[in-house]
Amino acid sequence: MNVKSMLAVAAVAAAGMAAMGVASADQFRSLYAPIAPPQSIDLGKAELGKKLFFDPRLSKSGFISCNSCHNLSRGGSDNLSTSIGDKWQQGPINSPTVLNSSLNLAQFWDGRAADLKEQAGGPIANPAEMAFSHTLAIDVLESIPAYVREFKLVFKKDKIDIDQVTEAIAEFEKTLVTPNSRFDQWLLGKTDALTKDELAGYRLFNESGCVACHNGPNLGGNSFQKMGVVEPYKGNMPDGRAAVTGKDADRFNFKVPTLRNVELTYPYFHDGAANTLTEAVDIMGRLQLGKRFTKEENDQIVAFLKTLTGDQPQFMLPILPPSSDQTPRPKPFN
Amino acid sequence: MNVKSMLAVAAVAAAGMAAMGVASADQFRSLYAPIAPPQSIDLGKAELGKKLFFDPRLSKSGFISCNSCHNLSRGGSDNLSTSIGDKWQQGPINSPTVLNSSLNLAQFWDGRAADLKEQAGGPIANPAEMAFSHTLAIDVLESIPAYVREFKLVFKKDKIDIDQVTEAIAEFEKTLVTPNSRFDQWLLGKTDALTKDELAGYRLFNESGCVACHNGPNLGGNSFQKMGVVEPYKGNMPDGRAAVTGKDADRFNFKVPTLRNVELTYPYFHDGAANTLTEAVDIMGRLQLGKRFTKEENDQIVAFLKTLTGDQPQFMLPILPPSSDQTPRPKPFN
Repeated sequence: MNVKSMLAVAAVAAAGMAAMGVASADQFRSLYAPIAPPQSIDLGKAELGKKLFFDPRLSKSGFISCNSCHNLSRGGSDNLSTSIGDKWQQGPINSPTVLNSSLNLAQFWDGRAADLKEQAGGPIANPAEMAFSHTLAIDVLESIPAYVREFKLVFKKDKIDIDQVTEAIAEFEKTLVTPNSRFDQWLLGKTDALTKDELAGYRLFNESGCVACHNGPNLGGNSFQKMGVVEPYKGNMPDGRAAVTGKDADRFNFKVPTLRNVELTYPYFHDGAANTLTEAVDIMGRLQLGKRFTKEENDQIVAFLKTLTGDQPQFMLPILPPSSDQTPRPKPFN
Repeated sequence: MNVKSMLAVAAVAAAGMAAMGVASADQFRSLYAPIAPPQSIDLGKAELGKKLFFDPRLSKSGFISCNSCHNLSRGGSDNLSTSIGDKWQQGPINSPTVLNSSLNLAQFWDGRAADLKEQAGGPIANPAEMAFSHTLAIDVLESIPAYVREFKLVFKKDKIDIDQVTEAIAEFEKTLVTPNSRFDQWLLGKTDALTKDELAGYRLFNESGCVACHNGPNLGGNSFQKMGVVEPYKGNMPDGRAAVTGKDADRFNFKVPTLRNVELTYPYFHDGAANTLTEAVDIMGRLQLGKRFTKEENDQIVAFLKTLTGDQPQFMLPILPPSSDQTPRPKPFN
């Protein structure tokens, strides 16, 4: 379903409810779901993956780890418009949050990776990001005795390979969900979890049609949609989904970003051009919905969006095993 | 006391003990002390300091935090020869570990900061490191409501200032000690905490004179000594202590680095030129002591050095408060 047909459904629903005088909050409820705690986690794999996620030795420079751009102290993002890669290269696109990313239909803004495991291999070997290669990364890990033992314990194989590395990182990332936001408490029956203004924002979010794309447990992440439906987007505009499908119809289509923890994941949009939620809501209203929200409406929607901040993953900072005399040394400056 | 007179004392002691047939391990014991747990910590200040230590918003780019170069997953160091600063500038000197740094007589290799509080302000404003200014850092912090509240709670003042920032960071750093190494267990009476080879290495460490500079609870950090006593050092050679004192006699003098956790803080020396402990022990033996250790001796000393790895600081990854609409945005690319 594309954004226009979704909007039509939302509009019909809103009109129907308005006609019936029904409290609209309840009618849209079924389009959402609370974030569930992680299920079926292989803890050994996830613990290993946590170390790898924080280990800069997966980069050529020995300086950049997954956590550099998906900083778990900062909503799983780097809070930069576009990321900083090897030798301070400027990335082409905004780093999406890793939080709740297991709920997305695909990974990267253009969905070029089917899942977290496939995604995890990308930045390691991307010359503009960690600038390493899978082979070199494995050479490093194989030279670190404590990693060799831990991989053997977890994967029961004689040799480490990149599949094990990305599988462990993906398993850790599956644990990075953020349940218990005030919105989720409200969804689960705590009727006073949202203030009057936040509820008004929730109604506007639904009735204006934001929900057409930002729905499901992740309020997004479950479809590709065009950036600039009613008006074209004036910022930096890569091909988006079309780069993957080769279809002209997919130009300027992006995976709809999750709105979970959106208060923490500024700046917004694929190019990180919107610094504030106020600005993002205003632009989305005009470009996607043809609406100009009043200041009060914008404030209410922003207030609602801030109820989507859930419990951040809490864990001990991992202690990484030291390199050995045989470990190839990082090359930050050549 | 300079390195030569210290060596003389050590030599006399070693000769005396050898003459008496006394087990030398016990004679040198009083030159060391176990790492003590942190005392008199202001926990509110330390918790705030932990957040600041991990917060890249204290840098111009929004990408570099204290933890970038003093990575607490990696022995409080970055494991690079020299660090990476703003715009990937190559630092002039190896990042010393922050672990147990509260025990040092001064901070930085040249001791130009009297204490941790004074040190903490340096990198923030250094154009080659975090490239910010104290004023801009305070502007950022003052714009973040959760920080404003936390500073007020901890310091009971109306305004945040750089003194509070560096005091909080220093208080956190005081907690970063690493007690309970096997060497400390041995010092505290667990006679089987060290293997035969490790004890042999300990004796060599003492009797060869390493202890002349690497003594006290931190096995170093308590004096400035010349790099290249017997033979000149062939690597990169900044002025060292002379840059602070202006005295020619202090040229090539550096604060003796701690050997605590030295297994984790490779590469070694002020220029990070020695990749392995084997190499570092060999070079130190020749340049500082005029000794060429055999392979067996070198192995034994290295085995002893690896008993100096203590319990690494264990804590939850801090969750940083989000910026507000008023927060000045980072400028990584201009």
